[in-house]
Amino acid sequence: ISAIPHKADAGPDETLVFRHYDAQQEVLGRTMEDWLRFSVCYWHTFRGTGSDPFGSGTIKRPWEDGTDSVDNAKRRLRAAFEFYSKLGNRYWTFHDRDLAPEGANLAETNNNLDQLVELAAELQKKTGVKLLWATCNLFNHPRYMHGAATSCDAHVTAYAGAQVKKGLEIAHRLGAENFVFWGGREGYQSLLNTDPKADLDHLAAFYRMVVAYKEKIGFKGQLLIEPKAKEPTRHQYDYDAQTVMAFLHQYGLTQHFKINVEPNHTTLAGHPYEHDVIFASMYGMLGSIDANTGSPDLGWDTDQFPMDVRNCTVIMKAVIEQGGIAPGGLNFDAKVRRESTELKDMFIAHAAAMDTFARGLKNAASIITEGVMRKSLLSRYVSWNTGMGARITAGEASLEECEKLIHEHGEPKSVSAHQEHFEAMLNHYI
Amino acid sequence: ISAIPHKADAGPDETLVFRHYDAQQEVLGRTMEDWLRFSVCYWHTFRGTGSDPFGSGTIKRPWEDGTDSVDNAKRRLRAAFEFYSKLGNRYWTFHDRDLAPEGANLAETNNNLDQLVELAAELQKKTGVKLLWATCNLFNHPRYMHGAATSCDAHVTAYAGAQVKKGLEIAHRLGAENFVFWGGREGYQSLLNTDPKADLDHLAAFYRMVVAYKEKIGFKGQLLIEPKAKEPTRHQYDYDAQTVMAFLHQYGLTQHFKINVEPNHTTLAGHPYEHDVIFASMYGMLGSIDANTGSPDLGWDTDQFPMDVRNCTVIMKAVIEQGGIAPGGLNFDAKVRRESTELKDMFIAHAAAMDTFARGLKNAASIITEGVMRKSLLSRYVSWNTGMGARITAGEASLEECEKLIHEHGEPKSVSAHQEHFEAMLNHYI
Amino acid sequence: ISAIPHKADAGPDETLVFRHYDAQQEVLGRTMEDWLRFSVCYWHTFRGTGSDPFGSGTIKRPWEDGTDSVDNAKRRLRAAFEFYSKLGNRYWTFHDRDLAPEGANLAETNNNLDQLVELAAELQKKTGVKLLWATCNLFNHPRYMHGAATSCDAHVTAYAGAQVKKGLEIAHRLGAENFVFWGGREGYQSLLNTDPKADLDHLAAFYRMVVAYKEKIGFKGQLLIEPKAKEPTRHQYDYDAQTVMAFLHQYGLTQHFKINVEPNHTTLAGHPYEHDVIFASMYGMLGSIDANTGSPDLGWDTDQFPMDVRNCTVIMKAVIEQGGIAPGGLNFDAKVRRESTELKDMFIAHAAAMDTFARGLKNAASIITEGVMRKSLLSRYVSWNTGMGARITAGEASLEECEKLIHEHGEPKSVSAHQEHFEAMLNHYI
Amino acid sequence: ISAIPHKADAGPDETLVFRHYDAQQEVLGRTMEDWLRFSVCYWHTFRGTGSDPFGSGTIKRPWEDGTDSVDNAKRRLRAAFEFYSKLGNRYWTFHDRDLAPEGANLAETNNNLDQLVELAAELQKKTGVKLLWATCNLFNHPRYMHGAATSCDAHVTAYAGAQVKKGLEIAHRLGAENFVFWGGREGYQSLLNTDPKADLDHLAAFYRMVVAYKEKIGFKGQLLIEPKAKEPTRHQYDYDAQTVMAFLHQYGLTQHFKINVEPNHTTLAGHPYEHDVIFASMYGMLGSIDANTGSPDLGWDTDQFPMDVRNCTVIMKAVIEQGGIAPGGLNFDAKVRRESTELKDMFIAHAAAMDTFARGLKNAASIITEGVMRKSLLSRYVSWNTGMGARITAGEASLEECEKLIHEHGEPKSVSAHQEHFEAMLNHYI
Repeated sequence: ISAIPHKADAGPDETLVFRHYDAQQEVLGRTMEDWLRFSVCYWHTFRGTGSDPFGSGTIKRPWEDGTDSVDNAKRRLRAAFEFYSKLGNRYWTFHDRDLAPEGANLAETNNNLDQLVELAAELQKKTGVKLLWATCNLFNHPRYMHGAATSCDAHVTAYAGAQVKKGLEIAHRLGAENFVFWGGREGYQSLLNTDPKADLDHLAAFYRMVVAYKEKIGFKGQLLIEPKAKEPTRHQYDYDAQTVMAFLHQYGLTQHFKINVEPNHTTLAGHPYEHDVIFASMYGMLGSIDANTGSPDLGWDTDQFPMDVRNCTVIMKAVIEQGGIAPGGLNFDAKVRRESTELKDMFIAHAAAMDTFARGLKNAASIITEGVMRKSLLSRYVSWNTGMGARITAGEASLEECEKLIHEHGEPKSVSAHQEHFEAMLNHYI
Repeated sequence: ISAIPHKADAGPDETLVFRHYDAQQEVLGRTMEDWLRFSVCYWHTFRGTGSDPFGSGTIKRPWEDGTDSVDNAKRRLRAAFEFYSKLGNRYWTFHDRDLAPEGANLAETNNNLDQLVELAAELQKKTGVKLLWATCNLFNHPRYMHGAATSCDAHVTAYAGAQVKKGLEIAHRLGAENFVFWGGREGYQSLLNTDPKADLDHLAAFYRMVVAYKEKIGFKGQLLIEPKAKEPTRHQYDYDAQTVMAFLHQYGLTQHFKINVEPNHTTLAGHPYEHDVIFASMYGMLGSIDANTGSPDLGWDTDQFPMDVRNCTVIMKAVIEQGGIAPGGLNFDAKVRRESTELKDMFIAHAAAMDTFARGLKNAASIITEGVMRKSLLSRYVSWNTGMGARITAGEASLEECEKLIHEHGEPKSVSAHQEHFEAMLNHYI
Repeated sequence: ISAIPHKADAGPDETLVFRHYDAQQEVLGRTMEDWLRFSVCYWHTFRGTGSDPFGSGTIKRPWEDGTDSVDNAKRRLRAAFEFYSKLGNRYWTFHDRDLAPEGANLAETNNNLDQLVELAAELQKKTGVKLLWATCNLFNHPRYMHGAATSCDAHVTAYAGAQVKKGLEIAHRLGAENFVFWGGREGYQSLLNTDPKADLDHLAAFYRMVVAYKEKIGFKGQLLIEPKAKEPTRHQYDYDAQTVMAFLHQYGLTQHFKINVEPNHTTLAGHPYEHDVIFASMYGMLGSIDANTGSPDLGWDTDQFPMDVRNCTVIMKAVIEQGGIAPGGLNFDAKVRRESTELKDMFIAHAAAMDTFARGLKNAASIITEGVMRKSLLSRYVSWNTGMGARITAGEASLEECEKLIHEHGEPKSVSAHQEHFEAMLNHYI
Repeated sequence: ISAIPHKADAGPDETLVFRHYDAQQEVLGRTMEDWLRFSVCYWHTFRGTGSDPFGSGTIKRPWEDGTDSVDNAKRRLRAAFEFYSKLGNRYWTFHDRDLAPEGANLAETNNNLDQLVELAAELQKKTGVKLLWATCNLFNHPRYMHGAATSCDAHVTAYAGAQVKKGLEIAHRLGAENFVFWGGREGYQSLLNTDPKADLDHLAAFYRMVVAYKEKIGFKGQLLIEPKAKEPTRHQYDYDAQTVMAFLHQYGLTQHFKINVEPNHTTLAGHPYEHDVIFASMYGMLGSIDANTGSPDLGWDTDQFPMDVRNCTVIMKAVIEQGGIAPGGLNFDAKVRRESTELKDMFIAHAAAMDTFARGLKNAASIITEGVMRKSLLSRYVSWNTGMGARITAGEASLEECEKLIHEHGEPKSVSAHQEHFEAMLNHYI
């Protein structure tokens, strides 16, 4: 385990890392740590092997003995908390099945899980690292091949229900600040053999059971749905933030859930990188962010570490504007490339992404403090504050009034949107 | 005007057209005409010139004199109704600005429009061709460059309001069965200079004025919103069917609007061709269809004539399953390629698309009548009809019950989804 | 093994399969079997488990004992030839590593392989099923994570050389009619850490060794390169057919290789489905076809069975026009969906795809026999047969002559391209 | 004309512009001006009106009188040179048809052109602004709707020949350092009505006439082909850099042409932003760059000003590594958004893009000077310098030798590619 390098060992040029991130530095009245709430995910960083659809695993960690035993799982968990302590992230996230091996049946599986949860509780206490969110893996096991809550087989949905019951319990036990649903198999491969209306009705019924049980056990964490457009299914029901909001309205679930936005999923849905963060936020529905990126020329989820300064700046601007992301955070749902096989890469990747977000935070703070971009934006919308603009907004105007105004005042004046100037202003800060 | 060829002149091999479409033939108890409710759009077919961003117009029609006069507009409209009569479509659609030239101010513009509307009323009466829907062009004029209802300038929104007031009046005058909003400029080019929440608040306020005025004048047509993902703006607010449904819920407008789905827009949003038709339909929100197609390898709206038998089959299956598309219809929002410069092409394109949809209708009717695909689908979902499936659906189950069931009955059985067999069954019908 | 169903057991409606395919039926002077040269691939159909990046294997075959032993490999191979015999395909294809387990070192691996090759030779002889092509898997093993012939490590390239040496030998032994190179890891993940020019120089050097050894051992099979745009790497060096042709010219290798086109790869490169088949064919470089399809709304390789009648028609039209695809064939590089878990699905999928291609063949033969489409095409190009057109083609004209012609004769006439009519003509045949 | 603002009037915060660009500042032994060779294109900046497929022009310039007269054309050209002088770019580019209105026939058109060319010669002399390249617009006029050199009508190709003859003459007259061919209509809309082999044969024949005439008149400028994947045609023959290189090899034209890479076209072909610049460069074929960008979520050409610091850095790194881009340059084939209607926007857009490239140049110079990234890259490839690596490269090795090496030395060692570290190193410089 001592094989995990300290950040000072990062590479030939260790000055490259943490040039910008300083956990205790104050920005706009809070520490960087408070704004950024970095979390390291367990699935990629401690369960990833580098396998892909065309190749076997490439990554071997020194703490792994190659078995799927509870002992190995415990050793892995200890290594993870050592890594967190060295890296300096304050949060972690996991799926239930990341932590402990499945047993011969649900009871045995839950028993395995309990052992690891107790160890996690102990390690959390010892290190101060907290659980940003837990989630259930309802997509890997073959039983979920047709979906979990949206399976055509109600027996499968019942299995998912049993699994989520336990998931909520362990989240509660570990003080999770959120609980996430990513519907990896909730979607369709073909509309020819699928009844999507039945599936979505079942999904809503499932969520109602979740809400009831959450309240029953007194779990206070925020429930989050994570949208994704496609992959593994041809079409995921939670396509993007607005699709999730439509679903929550259609089934009267709006008050129980917020959204966990992953930008690599946003771009797969055809939107600009920051779109879903901004659109969820503006309806009060942005709960947390899975901080990662894809390659815009690729059509699948690559879960790369976020390294683009411009993108991290606009995300942090949205976060500051909504007053922070708590109880959510920035969870690195990102994996080292399968060719980045050294432990050192794991450290460098996280540190460089944290640093990029720290740069983004500082840039966003400057933009907001100086106020030039905001002022330029507000000046474009000034007509809505008085007169007909105010009357339309207030619901006091009518089409007849609109017509009268035009007959009297004629054409509006042409004004420029100055997009390139806005882009140049942004570049000024990054 | 006699230059419009009759269908018998379609080409060297006139047997190619209308091999399948027979307006009066009965299918599942209705005539083809009743199921298909074909409409020809005025903008592409009578205002299209073949210009594109890289080239000037290529298409010259014999009835055009090259001026933007009211006289030319009238001659064009008469040619259109002659075309409709020869082709045999029962409906047409238009934007306000397609019909008549803009004048020096709104009053003059409305006066021009009134002259054409009177002629249209007369031609409708004479030919029996009816108005499927009207719409306002709120995107072409420079004043709308920042949006219409979502412009940053309230004066522009007021102009749009005045224009829509007149639009509703002429729709009412011509007995339009629907009225469509396609928000061509309602979106953003850059999130840096845009306040999307303000824009959407304004859009909702605008729609409330529309509903009020519609009710005031007693217009009974169905209001429809037409989604599009992108183009001309970088991101349109009405991205796809589910985004529109989210918006309607967020602003309490669900009961006043349905959706006009255009498959070329559906695919631009990253969905399969039939996705939005099916998803709008399953929430009772499918109002009408703009029958066209794009090329899946292109990232912009090509508005091609729908010629794919498989696609037309699955669309018609969805239409039959919801009991028909009335008061909506199948509107050919499609244009001949700019290289298809002869009048004959205009005829062939429409006739071949009508024929493809007639094939689709007959195929869909066979699928539904024989019932094999439906039976295969229902058998996949049979577990939801009884026991735990029924209890979950009814809201009577809990996560505890789910856990109990799994502890008692263990793993679900693995069953195949038979996707390839479903695909082969579909091929059997097409 | 008797668990493999005969085609008569295909499903509830066995008439769905082989409604069109009849191996011995003559079409344009050859049997269907001769035109279509169907091949079943070993990797998907006998090594596929239904695993994907988000889920474990779902498919369990009755002949598998769960071990990676040579015995299991032999039982699997016998099952495969039983399947081929029942299905009626005349060819198969494999990667070296599909056939036999890797050993502790290359010698052991080769020894394992030899045992399976001997069994394959025996089964080929017994059943009459022949080897369309063999290939080496140079992408799955972790050693190839940076590429094989384009690895940054020459030792890895030497390993690939050793493996291809053996691959050519067994192809020779089994009478393979072709040998394929698909460069799964020959590409880049990031241009920051890659020297693409060095990589391509190494790839060319590698191919020169291949050609030398092929000639040395007297292997007569056609060498083929299979293009793919992306996946697993961010960017594959063999992006599409034209990129491969550029490479072959740049390194003087044109006479030694042809191209194996896979339409699911063609569409990933942004081209229409049939583009690479037609572009490779028109330069005499179309060697074979991997018959499959993707979903146009997805950005990764799904290897679905080809079920689209229109697409299979245009592919077969191109094949007939170049006089057939031999010594290549139509290899089903396609896998049943991971939810299609029954043996029956494996049969239905192949049979339905064969049937769709048989339909395509018959349609294409009608198009060619009737000649209407060809005649319409030739009439568009008639000006190139005489006068200035002929002079330009022959290299006899000059820009000065062009200018003279325009000064004398002025503008060309506008003629329609009749695209919609061509589309309608195609629909007439499908 | 005095309405063109000086850069000091750029906006509320004039410090935003030219913070980085200083024409005479030395970087790696040359001035910034020499490295960057900025050019302003005439078509977007002086002929753009803001029209798009869904809207009329929005932009009105003070020097335009609304006519298509030669006088207006001259006033426009003087305004352009005033703009160039104020902005400080040293080069400009144009299409023949940008400069002067077409007349009633070719002779008249050429006469109009001559008048403007004489004025351009005078203005070039007076201001010192030079012609980076000229090109012929062979796509806008309806006659070119089926292509120019690849039209199905040889008369059209002859027209294109006549036009290019004149184009070469005026390029020669104005001292153009290059001459560009962008085949806007050289492609297909449908493979059903197209013979792509005939088209490409004609394209090659056309280029041979061009080369002959260029040599005849002694024009020394470099001929360049500009690739584009799609738009306006469904598929452009010059899809990307490698496709152009394939074509040049297939027709023996390699020594006569280089490539003008436009990154907005590169990304439309599915490649990373810098891909075609690097791939053209590595085969000695990078002739010039059209400096612009698209939005990765859009599927059409938006010709936005390049504002991304990371992208401009990697482009300039490639330019420095090939020793500069001369006789090519960085031509801003970019247009202000149609909502950026003020003259000021035109200035700000260019200045901000120049500044971004200046930042890119300085970043790239630091990367190259410090050498850390280069050293890290070379260390990955070190095995190719000696032993088997060197033997393979030199063509001295064989597959037998490879096998022997593996039998003797076994598996290669696993080494990391450190991609995230490379990304972090790049971020260090930007």
